[in-house]
Amino acid sequence: MAKTSAGRYFEDFRIGDVIRHAVPRTVTAGDVALYTALYGPRFAMQSSDAFARAVGYPQAPVDDLLVFHVVFGKTVPDISLNAVANLGYAEGRFLAAVYPGDTLTATSEVIGLKENSSRRTGVVYVRSTGWRQDGEKVLEYVRWVMVNKRDEAARPHAELVPDLATLVEPAALGAACPRIDTAAWDFGLSGAPHRFGDYAVGEKIDHVDGMTVQEAEHQLATRLYQNTAKVHFNQFLQVRTRIGRRLIYGGHVISLARALSYNGLANVFHIDAINSGSHVSPLFASDTVFAWSEVLGTADLPGRDDVGALRLRLVATKDRTCEEHPLRVGHDYEPGVILDLDYWALVPR
Amino acid sequence: MAKTSAGRYFEDFRIGDVIRHAVPRTVTAGDVALYTALYGPRFAMQSSDAFARAVGYPQAPVDDLLVFHVVFGKTVPDISLNAVANLGYAEGRFLAAVYPGDTLTATSEVIGLKENSSRRTGVVYVRSTGWRQDGEKVLEYVRWVMVNKRDEAARPHAELVPDLATLVEPAALGAACPRIDTAAWDFGLSGAPHRFGDYAVGEKIDHVDGMTVQEAEHQLATRLYQNTAKVHFNQFLQVRTRIGRRLIYGGHVISLARALSYNGLANVFHIDAINSGSHVSPLFASDTVFAWSEVLGTADLPGRDDVGALRLRLVATKDRTCEEHPLRVGHDYEPGVILDLDYWALVPR
Amino acid sequence: MAKTSAGRYFEDFRIGDVIRHAVPRTVTAGDVALYTALYGPRFAMQSSDAFARAVGYPQAPVDDLLVFHVVFGKTVPDISLNAVANLGYAEGRFLAAVYPGDTLTATSEVIGLKENSSRRTGVVYVRSTGWRQDGEKVLEYVRWVMVNKRDEAARPHAELVPDLATLVEPAALGAACPRIDTAAWDFGLSGAPHRFGDYAVGEKIDHVDGMTVQEAEHQLATRLYQNTAKVHFNQFLQVRTRIGRRLIYGGHVISLARALSYNGLANVFHIDAINSGSHVSPLFASDTVFAWSEVLGTADLPGRDDVGALRLRLVATKDRTCEEHPLRVGHDYEPGVILDLDYWALVPR
Repeated sequence: MAKTSAGRYFEDFRIGDVIRHAVPRTVTAGDVALYTALYGPRFAMQSSDAFARAVGYPQAPVDDLLVFHVVFGKTVPDISLNAVANLGYAEGRFLAAVYPGDTLTATSEVIGLKENSSRRTGVVYVRSTGWRQDGEKVLEYVRWVMVNKRDEAARPHAELVPDLATLVEPAALGAACPRIDTAAWDFGLSGAPHRFGDYAVGEKIDHVDGMTVQEAEHQLATRLYQNTAKVHFNQFLQVRTRIGRRLIYGGHVISLARALSYNGLANVFHIDAINSGSHVSPLFASDTVFAWSEVLGTADLPGRDDVGALRLRLVATKDRTCEEHPLRVGHDYEPGVILDLDYWALVPR
Repeated sequence: MAKTSAGRYFEDFRIGDVIRHAVPRTVTAGDVALYTALYGPRFAMQSSDAFARAVGYPQAPVDDLLVFHVVFGKTVPDISLNAVANLGYAEGRFLAAVYPGDTLTATSEVIGLKENSSRRTGVVYVRSTGWRQDGEKVLEYVRWVMVNKRDEAARPHAELVPDLATLVEPAALGAACPRIDTAAWDFGLSGAPHRFGDYAVGEKIDHVDGMTVQEAEHQLATRLYQNTAKVHFNQFLQVRTRIGRRLIYGGHVISLARALSYNGLANVFHIDAINSGSHVSPLFASDTVFAWSEVLGTADLPGRDDVGALRLRLVATKDRTCEEHPLRVGHDYEPGVILDLDYWALVPR
Repeated sequence: MAKTSAGRYFEDFRIGDVIRHAVPRTVTAGDVALYTALYGPRFAMQSSDAFARAVGYPQAPVDDLLVFHVVFGKTVPDISLNAVANLGYAEGRFLAAVYPGDTLTATSEVIGLKENSSRRTGVVYVRSTGWRQDGEKVLEYVRWVMVNKRDEAARPHAELVPDLATLVEPAALGAACPRIDTAAWDFGLSGAPHRFGDYAVGEKIDHVDGMTVQEAEHQLATRLYQNTAKVHFNQFLQVRTRIGRRLIYGGHVISLARALSYNGLANVFHIDAINSGSHVSPLFASDTVFAWSEVLGTADLPGRDDVGALRLRLVATKDRTCEEHPLRVGHDYEPGVILDLDYWALVPR
């Protein structure tokens, strides 16, 4: 009767299982300040209560990615403690704004299972949901991870690869964003004049700046999210692995790239949906992260003339600048690419 | 008339002296977030206002150890600036819950003095008390430290080794914990099903996970506590000592071990008393901390059927895993053991 | 039509230009906690709401230098992204206290331009102002920076070296400080007995302690201030420069030195004005900072008998202790000196 949890192995998951995750977490102004110190985001909406109030929010909302990381962190002990790799994301939607003082909890439903041909691992698909203390959903997303088996001889209870949308439909966007008073949007304060109509499909933007990551920084971040994955924290263990180093939480890369993207996307104030995403290659301490974006699409929001949606690809690299927009050579990613994220975000019209 | 303080030396202390420590400190949600980022604690009570309210607290209380570190930090400039080693703790009691917005101050009474046979150092015993802005005591504990003498020829004003309890009596427990509504305790959210009755004397729990410490992390922590001990911050000085490195504040180890102990003690929500404790060996940056616990005793709380008390030994190691529960070989501690702490904590029944 | 900003070059500035800077920033208790963790300040006024209320503030004010760094950070993308060096400060005045919840914005007026004889750079003088959400000025200061030219052949629109005061007049002091009830000032809690009258012109104080800086620490700080200067963050770029390392934001040194100065200036609770300042030499990670102060002058505040002003020189060194008060040899600074700051600060009478 062990009191400690060793996490689930592949054969422990069953399709249809709904897992309530520990630990409820009240997000505060302290978390917001740490998020700023860790990534340096400059989006006016999340940075200033006064700016947020002027355009229609009750106060500055918590950064969408901080909400994502807190919800993600809760799922780790139950879903990915024995994971080999975080393979992908889909059908991510931000459903309600979160403010300091709100308490978040999370649940996950197992929606797919597929054993790998090696029989030593399998892929687990879960739909995870973040909840606010009042029962509102704040976030929903699918992720799939490669999980070790405890016993190679064990077989999955059933196998199913879920049919996932490659794109969140524009009709589903906007839920977490109140009506924006665009006349009150101060483009001087937000840092750039570009509105929805200024972005064109196919446009590529090099975000110019780079950020070198220290071991202490990603550990502070990942603990802040109460993410318990051993690979991020335990050098004594890591030194005995093939990699030899602590792996940086993939979400840390997303947040760094998003913060860098301010330089070019200053008015892109809200991540609304995640269409797909993959961590192409790991990041390690002392690497420098760069980023570039491509406008993959644009969309109107049904019934709204205040904001429009941009479908953006956000690519992060390590130790490689992005003026040439590195992405793929044939089917492979170019050297240095570490993140390929496809998301919807809102911009004032 | 120097305006700077060089701290007290052994011969400056007199039994019966009561020292009021500078600096009052308002604890905020910012401190709580930093504490989470520094150690990654996951106890639901301190993590969630909603959880805390449901079971009977007005909001999430500040982590007991954050309170301890803030009070301890105030005592350093007056007690241990010229200390050689922090030798032990006893009779520690948490007397009132602390919430964000409360302001803490501290006093210490000198209760014992004993010169060492070398005549170059002596042991100072103090009973330190943490106070809330409204005059309530929030914490009391005895610690003893080995302090340098300014002048080897100086003699102590008097010598006395105080008679200290080896154990805080169960009758003295519970002061900082309001009545808990155990029916409202959500064991799914707290992360494990184990109640008071599930723990047996003699039970040993390996907390499995390890945490590697970076120089920046312990410096951020120790400054947050306004602890001014030079050995933690000044590499220019340390490199000229026998050790050659910055020493990590012992309280940092206690907090890391306590956070790791969530894996096995998820519902052990409140440190109520510290029976004894010693920092067996120093921790340095880049070491990895592991921990295990032993149930040394259990106790009912007089007049309370909501919570019970576990007497726990918390052992921390560095660069050594704890599946074999390393502790002693004969009278000596095993290699790798860095902390041996004996405390009372509360669990719902 | 690039959407990213490459920053202004020397020839882009015109005398009289007024630049509104992005990004508005609400300062919170989270920022205050991080500031404490980054520098370890112990001034009672900023540390304790209870102390601040007792003497006449509505609550603990935000540290003056945190306000300075936030305002400074906003000016970087518009003023000093292409700067070679931050040359000096003058006419700095703190005009209103800032409390958690206040939102800060910034503007700068170009007040001087001078091309350097090399024709490759020029000096830009700006008067920057920090504003509170209600339209109050909270801070004003002049700084001058050496900025690269985009095109060596370009000529400045006009040249002018502004006539700057070498000293803020005492009559201008006190604006950000409410009337202090000195009878309620608890010199036990503040940590030292010294009042205005205890400091004499010419007095020099070695602040004794040293603080070693880690790469993660200054990056966290500088991102917290949303300061985007590349030299602080991008090791990939820095390694290709003559210096080879990340440069630490000069303001980080000021905050470290000010925090160290508590040991000797415990009751010097408010930085009121900056007369002049220069970053003599750069600081790098793993260097240890020490500091000393000299009383350059004292002044009464017109119509106030509660507080007096000390004119202080604050000198910071790296990897050199300050018992000998290192400063100049002839016209040059002594080796190890990194900061020479001349400021006014308030002390209770």
